[in-house]
Amino acid sequence: MSKEYILRVQCPDRYGIVAKVSSTLNKSNLFILDSAHYGDPENKTFFMRAKLIYSKNILNTEKFGKFFERECKSLKLEWSIKEADYRPNTAIFVSKYGHCLQDLMYRVDSGILPMNVSCIISNHKDHEKIAKWHDIPFFHIPINKKNKEKSEIATRQILKDLNIDFLILARYMQILSDKMCKDFYGRIINIHHSFLPSFKGAKPYHQAYKKGVKILGATAHYVSSDLDEGPIIDQSVERVDHAKTPRDLELIGRDLESITLARAVKYHIERRIFINNSKTVIFN
Amino acid sequence: MSKEYILRVQCPDRYGIVAKVSSTLNKSNLFILDSAHYGDPENKTFFMRAKLIYSKNILNTEKFGKFFERECKSLKLEWSIKEADYRPNTAIFVSKYGHCLQDLMYRVDSGILPMNVSCIISNHKDHEKIAKWHDIPFFHIPINKKNKEKSEIATRQILKDLNIDFLILARYMQILSDKMCKDFYGRIINIHHSFLPSFKGAKPYHQAYKKGVKILGATAHYVSSDLDEGPIIDQSVERVDHAKTPRDLELIGRDLESITLARAVKYHIERRIFINNSKTVIFN
Amino acid sequence: MSKEYILRVQCPDRYGIVAKVSSTLNKSNLFILDSAHYGDPENKTFFMRAKLIYSKNILNTEKFGKFFERECKSLKLEWSIKEADYRPNTAIFVSKYGHCLQDLMYRVDSGILPMNVSCIISNHKDHEKIAKWHDIPFFHIPINKKNKEKSEIATRQILKDLNIDFLILARYMQILSDKMCKDFYGRIINIHHSFLPSFKGAKPYHQAYKKGVKILGATAHYVSSDLDEGPIIDQSVERVDHAKTPRDLELIGRDLESITLARAVKYHIERRIFINNSKTVIFN
Amino acid sequence: MSKEYILRVQCPDRYGIVAKVSSTLNKSNLFILDSAHYGDPENKTFFMRAKLIYSKNILNTEKFGKFFERECKSLKLEWSIKEADYRPNTAIFVSKYGHCLQDLMYRVDSGILPMNVSCIISNHKDHEKIAKWHDIPFFHIPINKKNKEKSEIATRQILKDLNIDFLILARYMQILSDKMCKDFYGRIINIHHSFLPSFKGAKPYHQAYKKGVKILGATAHYVSSDLDEGPIIDQSVERVDHAKTPRDLELIGRDLESITLARAVKYHIERRIFINNSKTVIFN
Repeated sequence: MSKEYILRVQCPDRYGIVAKVSSTLNKSNLFILDSAHYGDPENKTFFMRAKLIYSKNILNTEKFGKFFERECKSLKLEWSIKEADYRPNTAIFVSKYGHCLQDLMYRVDSGILPMNVSCIISNHKDHEKIAKWHDIPFFHIPINKKNKEKSEIATRQILKDLNIDFLILARYMQILSDKMCKDFYGRIINIHHSFLPSFKGAKPYHQAYKKGVKILGATAHYVSSDLDEGPIIDQSVERVDHAKTPRDLELIGRDLESITLARAVKYHIERRIFINNSKTVIFN
Repeated sequence: MSKEYILRVQCPDRYGIVAKVSSTLNKSNLFILDSAHYGDPENKTFFMRAKLIYSKNILNTEKFGKFFERECKSLKLEWSIKEADYRPNTAIFVSKYGHCLQDLMYRVDSGILPMNVSCIISNHKDHEKIAKWHDIPFFHIPINKKNKEKSEIATRQILKDLNIDFLILARYMQILSDKMCKDFYGRIINIHHSFLPSFKGAKPYHQAYKKGVKILGATAHYVSSDLDEGPIIDQSVERVDHAKTPRDLELIGRDLESITLARAVKYHIERRIFINNSKTVIFN
Repeated sequence: MSKEYILRVQCPDRYGIVAKVSSTLNKSNLFILDSAHYGDPENKTFFMRAKLIYSKNILNTEKFGKFFERECKSLKLEWSIKEADYRPNTAIFVSKYGHCLQDLMYRVDSGILPMNVSCIISNHKDHEKIAKWHDIPFFHIPINKKNKEKSEIATRQILKDLNIDFLILARYMQILSDKMCKDFYGRIINIHHSFLPSFKGAKPYHQAYKKGVKILGATAHYVSSDLDEGPIIDQSVERVDHAKTPRDLELIGRDLESITLARAVKYHIERRIFINNSKTVIFN
Repeated sequence: MSKEYILRVQCPDRYGIVAKVSSTLNKSNLFILDSAHYGDPENKTFFMRAKLIYSKNILNTEKFGKFFERECKSLKLEWSIKEADYRPNTAIFVSKYGHCLQDLMYRVDSGILPMNVSCIISNHKDHEKIAKWHDIPFFHIPINKKNKEKSEIATRQILKDLNIDFLILARYMQILSDKMCKDFYGRIINIHHSFLPSFKGAKPYHQAYKKGVKILGATAHYVSSDLDEGPIIDQSVERVDHAKTPRDLELIGRDLESITLARAVKYHIERRIFINNSKTVIFN
């Protein structure tokens, strides 16, 4: 009848944090099954993620929280605790290319990605059929120069109604507004089809072809208001040669995109990622 | 004036180990800078490695040891503590192929591998020149069917005289005696020129060529009395195609061997490796 | 109005083959767009694949064949020519695990794999829904100790009726009969979920876990009557560590399997693979 | 008594080139052992490299050249032919970091890189000892703002006196003059310690650290007068994580640099590389 929790902690680095945190957990009958921590030597910030087991039924998180805060007051923690089996609600955004969407849906169906896909949102109708097949609400929200603001309002309403935890841009080719990027910072994952910071912006495969690179890449990152500049979560690469056409690069790239995005989403769901200024700390 | 230490702990897995160990350390003014742990779910064994800082000059390890043992008695620890900057003494064994030896020596000279190469031992004279260039004692111990026992006695005497901590078999083509393997278990690292468990035994590149594999590998492992079966430390691979000759595979393999062996040696020096029955746990 | 063809040639190696073949092609108004060849130095066999363009409408392959044979008689060629855009008919075999099937279907739908999936054959009913969604005939052919022979007869009838060019075993867990393996030699591609020749047979992920390997693999190969011993087409690998459970290895392995199988199928469709005794020659 | 040659051909792409070239070779008793070609679909340029065997002692290249030119006149070839075992003369340039130099020297000594290291040139004295150990002339040419021109004149004189075929910049931290880059275009190989086009210019490891990339890279390229923009020859990558310091990245990067540079040099020596405007075509 015991239950598992994920604890996340972030605070100014100093001596004795692990000892203090772990002994406080013990006092609350929470025991560390698995933990990882990292102290950034530059900005002196400490990050910790722990998988805990509570030996006595269900944890009263509010009561625990008060005790934890009091005991660790001197550490100035930012922290959170959540059931390890919590399935977040996600909205997948897609445009014309469906390979990342397909791949995500397969991983959700087969239990690899423990999340609820609450809806699929697209500026095109191409992938409505996939949504139907999976019995997921599909929202067609076309976007053009005139309706951008209105579209965003509609989108936000959906996210609110469906109680969305985080957004996945699965080759969604529209740029979100600054305000949207800020409000959801750390909760929007995008897949960029190049090895960032190389080839930002449009048509990265054509850029890569033109440059004659010998290795192709894809990058999953959190979206910031700076286009293609948000904190990198994961990257993948594949060797290519001179004989590859832009079309070949695109096809090779699709596999990189699908795998890299899926991996980033998995880290996010399992609450393994901390944003550390413009970078990420990932405990895997 | 503070000094860093590496603590290694292994014990039967149970709740509360991290809390007990870390608070005991704190009481001794030892603070965790970096730590990693792992509980094997199959054999219920807990492993932990921590980098500690002692804030008060130099630690009296004997005194600390008594205190640590007493406080953590219930945990039934196997443990050790050592200065983080301890440079172990190693003996490098080599036969005809010198690429791993060359590579190791370069990494030692440039500070990448913090160890003392106390001697080079070979059944051939080919690499005496390298030893001289690096000002390292070279022992030529030829081995044939008749002198095997005598050679081992000579070898052991050298290891004892030079106070050797661990042995590196850098493409050493002689098989050590069972007794030698047992006495130095966990302290002999070998590089095998294939992706184990594929292609055990002699001429792995020829075996790989004959089999027509599309990826080539190398494996660094601890030596056990079972040939090529000791716990794997690290592996590397490289893509190959049908046009590669056995000679090509050998040349590609050399790079894999050098890099894989160097990485395994680095993990060992930094005390990151635990032997977990027939496998390894590596905190990196 | 010009049309492209793929020419495949295999013959005893000797001087002057390229010159003879290419000038004979020119005389037939067939021009080499792209070609690759390889002479195996061990068994003195020459392999060549060329992409040709015929400048005058559609090639009379019969007439060309007679001319080609006559001109190149001294070379003792085995050869074939086919339209470059020929879409072969395939039957996909699957059991319980559907990830490779899903992945293949997505690549067919999106134009990456130019083949006709003429049917899906399974010893289970789990994936009938996928077949329906894609409008592909699904045959449920259960297999047990008693009905093995009868099932094979039924299977062969389907393959004959649908004019199947080659078979894909997409995690199909039944062993084909010797006769089947021989009759379709070079036309059945299997995905084995390990880095062959390591971990043949059942439960390779459990074998890999037990051995403690640091790199996981998957292997696509032609099926021979020797289980898991047929000529290797492609392999992929991914780094893993001690903390991965057999379940983790399985999930990581699924991506390797899907990608490796898809790549092997693509090579086969594009007629890039030659079987060279127990190995493959692949021009990519 | 037969001898092997490497033929390189570049010309406007059209039908029938392979047939014309190979049959002309046959007429000269030169037979293709191995060949590769590529037609760039964008700029309609054809590239071909062939390994030939001459069955009759030693080829009179002058006589062959006249015949070849006459026969293939319509193809407008740029071409060259050279003994396959020709060992080019190279000058290795190095500054403070010696790992690439060490690695190259080891590969030369062990026969992996068939070239003559005619001299080592450095703006520092650090690596004079290595040059002496290998019995290679060492030239110390210090460079500062005032003596740049004079230093280049001295350098050029050395290159001329020693009949140098190509230059290797093995972590040479000085920027060559525009004129030097142009005069030796296609004959200077540089190793840049990042995955170009990411992180051009100084301190790429610090840039990579700051950006928080998850994969580190190195790039070997021909030097052009545009800094770090010359045609890419080869690239290598390695996965890294948040815990790596700039120093860690540097050490990981060194292995990437050594291997990538060695591979690029090998391609160059074996005459496998064609410059195709701002890119390379490599037949390997």
